Amino acid sequence: MYPTGIRPVLSSLGQRLSQSFTKTTVSPYTGRFVRYFSRSYRSSPIRGLSSTLRVPYRSFLSTNLTSPYTQKRTTMSAQKTSVNVAVIGTGNIGGELLNQIQGFNISAKAANTPQFNVVAISSIEGHFISKDYSPIDLGNWKAVSQTGNGPASFEVLADFLGKSTLPAIVVDNTASEAVAYSYPLFLSKGINIATPNKKAFSAPLAKYKEIIDASRKSGALLMHESSVGAGLPIISTLKELILTGDEILKVEGIFSGTMSYIFNNWSPNGKKGTAAFSEVVKVAKDNGFTEPDPRDDLNGMDVARKVTILSRIAGLDIESPEAFPVHSLIPEPLVTAASADDFMAGLPAFDASIAAVREAAEKEGKVVRFVGESDLVSKKTSVSLKSYETTHPFANLQHADNIISFTTKRYSTTPLVVIGAGAGAAVTAAGVLGDMIKILSQVRAADAPSKN
Amino acid sequence: MYPTGIRPVLSSLGQRLSQSFTKTTVSPYTGRFVRYFSRSYRSSPIRGLSSTLRVPYRSFLSTNLTSPYTQKRTTMSAQKTSVNVAVIGTGNIGGELLNQIQGFNISAKAANTPQFNVVAISSIEGHFISKDYSPIDLGNWKAVSQTGNGPASFEVLADFLGKSTLPAIVVDNTASEAVAYSYPLFLSKGINIATPNKKAFSAPLAKYKEIIDASRKSGALLMHESSVGAGLPIISTLKELILTGDEILKVEGIFSGTMSYIFNNWSPNGKKGTAAFSEVVKVAKDNGFTEPDPRDDLNGMDVARKVTILSRIAGLDIESPEAFPVHSLIPEPLVTAASADDFMAGLPAFDASIAAVREAAEKEGKVVRFVGESDLVSKKTSVSLKSYETTHPFANLQHADNIISFTTKRYSTTPLVVIGAGAGAAVTAAGVLGDMIKILSQVRAADAPSKN
Repeated sequence: MYPTGIRPVLSSLGQRLSQSFTKTTVSPYTGRFVRYFSRSYRSSPIRGLSSTLRVPYRSFLSTNLTSPYTQKRTTMSAQKTSVNVAVIGTGNIGGELLNQIQGFNISAKAANTPQFNVVAISSIEGHFISKDYSPIDLGNWKAVSQTGNGPASFEVLADFLGKSTLPAIVVDNTASEAVAYSYPLFLSKGINIATPNKKAFSAPLAKYKEIIDASRKSGALLMHESSVGAGLPIISTLKELILTGDEILKVEGIFSGTMSYIFNNWSPNGKKGTAAFSEVVKVAKDNGFTEPDPRDDLNGMDVARKVTILSRIAGLDIESPEAFPVHSLIPEPLVTAASADDFMAGLPAFDASIAAVREAAEKEGKVVRFVGESDLVSKKTSVSLKSYETTHPFANLQHADNIISFTTKRYSTTPLVVIGAGAGAAVTAAGVLGDMIKILSQVRAADAPSKN
Repeated sequence: MYPTGIRPVLSSLGQRLSQSFTKTTVSPYTGRFVRYFSRSYRSSPIRGLSSTLRVPYRSFLSTNLTSPYTQKRTTMSAQKTSVNVAVIGTGNIGGELLNQIQGFNISAKAANTPQFNVVAISSIEGHFISKDYSPIDLGNWKAVSQTGNGPASFEVLADFLGKSTLPAIVVDNTASEAVAYSYPLFLSKGINIATPNKKAFSAPLAKYKEIIDASRKSGALLMHESSVGAGLPIISTLKELILTGDEILKVEGIFSGTMSYIFNNWSPNGKKGTAAFSEVVKVAKDNGFTEPDPRDDLNGMDVARKVTILSRIAGLDIESPEAFPVHSLIPEPLVTAASADDFMAGLPAFDASIAAVREAAEKEGKVVRFVGESDLVSKKTSVSLKSYETTHPFANLQHADNIISFTTKRYSTTPLVVIGAGAGAAVTAAGVLGDMIKILSQVRAADAPSKN
């Protein structure tokens, strides 16, 4: 009487994702299904824990970390496992990350899933290696790292991680070129890397390719979501668009929280801008939204580095962040000002000239924004001041938000857009931890670096 | 003369992500690094291929699929591997997905990385199982599936996939409740699932928990990015926020492309709305933007299902999409209209009443949008008509875009927002393929379902 199996279900269904269609046609379960359900159906309130203990969500890509099923069948060889972690840099981001790792581990322990064993911490306060690979107490990492117990070099660290039976991750929380340029050493030994550091990915092209190639050859993962837009899903989204066969036509955005804040205030949407540019910069500086020397934001190079990173992922062989037009907002005579204070003192003299840009935009009913763009069709990349209609998403940006827009073959009528805070210790560390979790979900005991 | 190793680099660096800081302090490489680089430095133009052949990007989470390193050391047990795939449903989305899988496989073959062996296709046209597990020619899938070679039931399919030596994915491209309710059968056998089908995740709570629990117990992955917002990074973003320890305060958005289109046109931003509601619905229907019977959009249940899915992931035990207030836009007397045509004929009589809502909003300088909301703090969930200031991101939505906004403890000043096309075969299939790639990156030969 009832049809059984897939065939009649589909035959009656059509294959459209149509609610109305299925409602009227799929009601009769097969006898088989009813029997199946009556055997296995039960209430299983597994979510009770999660809101309080933050047990990792079970069906996420990066959970299901421990499969009882897999364990049973592959116990020694392919068992999903905890990983050893070396943290380099414990400033704002590194410190916050260590706290977040501690929180993750508590959840993982409760859920009986793999966790992060932090076995080395290198910071300005000291360098500690847990010689027997026992995890460092993260409630006490600062004191532990200060006990500095021996010589620290990248080679020593790589050898140490390589001698463990567990897979390893080096987390680089610095902005150091030297640390970034050590990635091939770690990667070649099968040690994975997670980092917000932009230096490797905006390095001169040959160096960049050397680093990417080291990852490719060893299979060690190299993850850097937080190098653009902090914890926002920018790099993962771009890579997935490419992997699924979409064609990237244009990537554009406001990539600097500092520049976002300055321009959202100096050229506000919906009303006439009144503040002088130098005043807005001063407020941003006083609130800690700029580098100690605001020229390190206003030169546009931070944006240029992020545009370089995304452009390369999208397939453009950018030579370096200096290899394309970047509009510096530092008035020429102030480039050589001796100090940040001298720079700030000189800036008001140039308020009128940049105000002219705002006035011209306002006459057209537009606002001014500091934008990075990569046109993958014309292969042109730039960082520049641009004007936008008041209804444009770039015009409507709030506070110090980043906005990144992907125009692709599939997202061509309107782009795919991500908006949100693109800086700050908590969200940046969360981006790094997200990368670490993805690595954790992909490695197993058998992935431990070799012993040599 | 030069300092060596991590210690002096970090000591001189500080641990801030500060460009200016590092520029002046990190210039001197150590002798050790210089030697290292001179040994291994070389140009390695590995990206040449990727723009033309779409070779998967090498350092993505879901690439590095084949690790020569891992292969060498764990050849038979943990080798990353291709997976067998059974595709259920070959309509708009399923057909597009098969094309996208074909494109992915061509890239993967060129890069010598694992690929998807489609070994079964079930559709309204026929049901085909490749008995020797040899991959179906995807250039010819329609004809192949029409050759229907034997009885098709979920049990037969699960047994077939379970007998393979490779891990397996069932891809459900239907909107069928019967297919969704078969997930525990597949999951319990260690077979992974990727799907845009909302039915499992918006099912009555006990059924939902049964399905999630089956995934948890076996460790088989259950991925459904496209069940909300098609290919947009919504579910992955929400799960990563939770996994990294953020606290979700509010999830809100415009989750229906149909409703987005209707309200963006009926209550346009920046100018007075003039079209009658029934007119806008008619244009949407004529352009294929609505279900055949527009009541299946206007009843709000599609949005309610998506809100249910996200709310549950965020930790709310929503009983069902019927368990919270949903504002239906179907005038009461038309609920029982016999046909879509009857409904459309009756709709103009109600234009005046809904126009009053628009006028009230316009008087406050606002626009009207159809919004789903989940407040995780008050634990209140709803689908309703709301008014927004013209500068609000919901007011500025274009075309038929979705917009989803996450307010969290970390993203509290301004929310994390994702905007873009949330429907359509290409982007929906891309979301499913993205899930499949994530599964591919996490499974290995040892993960094949057991033989029983």
